[in-house]
Amino acid sequence: MQTMFTLDQKDLPRRWYNVLPDLPTPLDAPLHPGTREPIEPEALLSLFARTCVEQEVATDRWIDIPDPVLDVYRHWRPTPLLRATRLERALNTPAHIYLKYEGASPTGSHKTNTAVPQAYYNKLEGTKNLTTETGAGQWGSALAFACQTFGLGCTVFMVRSSYDQKPYRKAMMSLFGARVHASPSAETQAGRDALARNRETPGSLGLAISEAVEAARSGTGTKYSLGSVLNHVLLHQTIIGLEAERQMEMAGESPDVVVACVGGGSNFGGLVLPLYRAARERGRTTRFVAVEPEACPSLTRGEYRYDFGDTAKTTPLLRMHTLGHDFVPPPIHAGGLRYHGMAPIVSRLVEDGVVEPVAYGQLDVFASAVLFARTEGIIPAPETAHAVHAAVQIARECAATGDRKTILIGFSGHGHFDMSAYSAYLAGELARAEPADRVYVRAAAAAATRLYC
Amino acid sequence: MQTMFTLDQKDLPRRWYNVLPDLPTPLDAPLHPGTREPIEPEALLSLFARTCVEQEVATDRWIDIPDPVLDVYRHWRPTPLLRATRLERALNTPAHIYLKYEGASPTGSHKTNTAVPQAYYNKLEGTKNLTTETGAGQWGSALAFACQTFGLGCTVFMVRSSYDQKPYRKAMMSLFGARVHASPSAETQAGRDALARNRETPGSLGLAISEAVEAARSGTGTKYSLGSVLNHVLLHQTIIGLEAERQMEMAGESPDVVVACVGGGSNFGGLVLPLYRAARERGRTTRFVAVEPEACPSLTRGEYRYDFGDTAKTTPLLRMHTLGHDFVPPPIHAGGLRYHGMAPIVSRLVEDGVVEPVAYGQLDVFASAVLFARTEGIIPAPETAHAVHAAVQIARECAATGDRKTILIGFSGHGHFDMSAYSAYLAGELARAEPADRVYVRAAAAAATRLYC
Repeated sequence: MQTMFTLDQKDLPRRWYNVLPDLPTPLDAPLHPGTREPIEPEALLSLFARTCVEQEVATDRWIDIPDPVLDVYRHWRPTPLLRATRLERALNTPAHIYLKYEGASPTGSHKTNTAVPQAYYNKLEGTKNLTTETGAGQWGSALAFACQTFGLGCTVFMVRSSYDQKPYRKAMMSLFGARVHASPSAETQAGRDALARNRETPGSLGLAISEAVEAARSGTGTKYSLGSVLNHVLLHQTIIGLEAERQMEMAGESPDVVVACVGGGSNFGGLVLPLYRAARERGRTTRFVAVEPEACPSLTRGEYRYDFGDTAKTTPLLRMHTLGHDFVPPPIHAGGLRYHGMAPIVSRLVEDGVVEPVAYGQLDVFASAVLFARTEGIIPAPETAHAVHAAVQIARECAATGDRKTILIGFSGHGHFDMSAYSAYLAGELARAEPADRVYVRAAAAAATRLYC
Repeated sequence: MQTMFTLDQKDLPRRWYNVLPDLPTPLDAPLHPGTREPIEPEALLSLFARTCVEQEVATDRWIDIPDPVLDVYRHWRPTPLLRATRLERALNTPAHIYLKYEGASPTGSHKTNTAVPQAYYNKLEGTKNLTTETGAGQWGSALAFACQTFGLGCTVFMVRSSYDQKPYRKAMMSLFGARVHASPSAETQAGRDALARNRETPGSLGLAISEAVEAARSGTGTKYSLGSVLNHVLLHQTIIGLEAERQMEMAGESPDVVVACVGGGSNFGGLVLPLYRAARERGRTTRFVAVEPEACPSLTRGEYRYDFGDTAKTTPLLRMHTLGHDFVPPPIHAGGLRYHGMAPIVSRLVEDGVVEPVAYGQLDVFASAVLFARTEGIIPAPETAHAVHAAVQIARECAATGDRKTILIGFSGHGHFDMSAYSAYLAGELARAEPADRVYVRAAAAAATRLYC
């Protein structure tokens, strides 16, 4: 039986899909961090490449992928669609389980899909250096690779807990020529302030963003690059879903349920947005399930309101699901999901009932990841493992009901740089992570401004 | 420009290619370790599955791949053929550089190609457990995966120097359910003897083989599995070259030079043997270059004679290029190339002038690996990096002469579990490895039986 569906390279999509004109409800405008008035796109040009800013508010449904970006994509794209037949048999389920495998990219995750165009646009516009933050290291290594490709300098602020857990991600970034700092660092005011408050902090994506933004503002020829959350990032990621749509057709199926993990929302959006469009166009009913960690449950337990993207309140305010910009999640291994906020597009689709959020604890997630690795031979990244766990739950339901659902997993990356987490899990040393309620109460006390439900 | 050539899964080869009937000179028979008389295949049945023993001396040119093996292969095969256009541009060479990418397999190297059929045949014949040795951990993790797939127990003796350098390979083997011991270990007499001689030994593949063979002989329902050297192992690996042959046709080219690294010879043989056949059949001249480390130069500086496959002299004697079964190579990072001997098939083809051996030092090899990673975004395993370095040398010659050669690299695996080696290299802390002459002299003194040239 065929279990791998590969598109020919001539069928590589030439355009990204922009969901903005197709959203059921338009997005609310970002607000200026000082005035709290709607911000003009021009105000973002000090941080981002002009083309990215334009894409942030684009109204065209299709946006051409530049040829030099396609040339780089062609080093690993189209990525394969795989059928997880051995997992299906192990679960004794009538469900069909597919995965769109982004682990085939140079740095092992979907992140290169946006790192490459962001570096390219910046290069075109004369930028010399990019700064960014990274959680698990997947985004940092993707941007390091992209900067290396186009001859840009690259500085990465890596969240302390990941920096300590994943030395080989740091090594990969160095190999691709990036400078890497553990965040909070002594390199920025935001970092120094955080260290003064608590020298032992595991850090957070929100804080690392503050550091990277500050470093971009103070560097010459330097801009900032964000690996998730923003509309243009989700746009670049839609190549995943556009490929997957054709590959599911090759397999002769259409997904009943699409599951993907959500940290900032770009992996989820990249797979789901084109499939959402396809489902609407063809009058199909498809469930879109966004999977987050219980330890950082922005969609399932956060508020939908305006909030800053970073801890130091330097970014525009976005209307999104948030746990509060000063929320510091426990150091779970899925470092890429430790973000207090969520992509406004994904948040809006949750509000509109298109996307269903769900949250799981890391011990349950790792149990499914081990089952997946032992049956399929592919080791999921801890972030990806959240989607795998959700798919396993649905497939088990199908086994109980006899329902033959087709499940598509957004397999955002492999776990080759996360083996210490697997070792800890297998040795019984992995913590369940703190109960979410305790985290909320503590965060709420620290912020002293609001209570989480 | 197209840079990835993917075969459709319906074009997955259904048969392996057996080179034995096509060798210019037949192989010399293995000898019994006790009597030194030619050994009967039957005598190998205490160690190996019957089908593997039969394949060791098969005379058919084509051997069917069993359907259950094809089902597992289909989880990652056919693997892609990639064109390294960015490396070509960086070298400013008219050469075209292709790589057959075996890093796409579950455990990241070509080793699963033979681990899966070996586990399958053993399962069919009633074996309960397999034992083996591993150097870099690529073979051990491949066999662990295959045993997990078919429900066999698995015990791996991992060469001490790799065990210490690569904890995450060990974690991967554990994840796939294997028991892993650092070799020399206290689990076997061979290991205890070696520890008594030198508690600080980095170990060697030859010694780890002795341990695994001893463990297989003393366990109930237990057999042994070898990841390289033997004819049946090279046979299983020919799927690489059979796919590559068709993919080079898709690319509209035929290779002038094929380069691959050699440790025991299975990766090299797997790619080269089908291409050797194709070249002969079509009257093409193709160079086949076998690349080994200066620190363990069995083909370039060893003798072609009968020798044991292991340190404790428990295996049959094979006629091959050898540095002596008691040779302990320095702990270079390319752990998979630290073997004193060589596949008899590869040795024979070197003697017959079909294969050209060459040896490089690890610092030069890492320099090319870094260039490759920074241009192509793929991080080569240290073993694979030897082939990359050879290809870079040839491409540089082409740049000097204007010759437009087509070079095909056997890209045996990725380096995601070797980042500590890259870190050491980038920090300037990687040793050139000991000069080969000093190693020889010391080994010769220890053995006190012969001198190496």
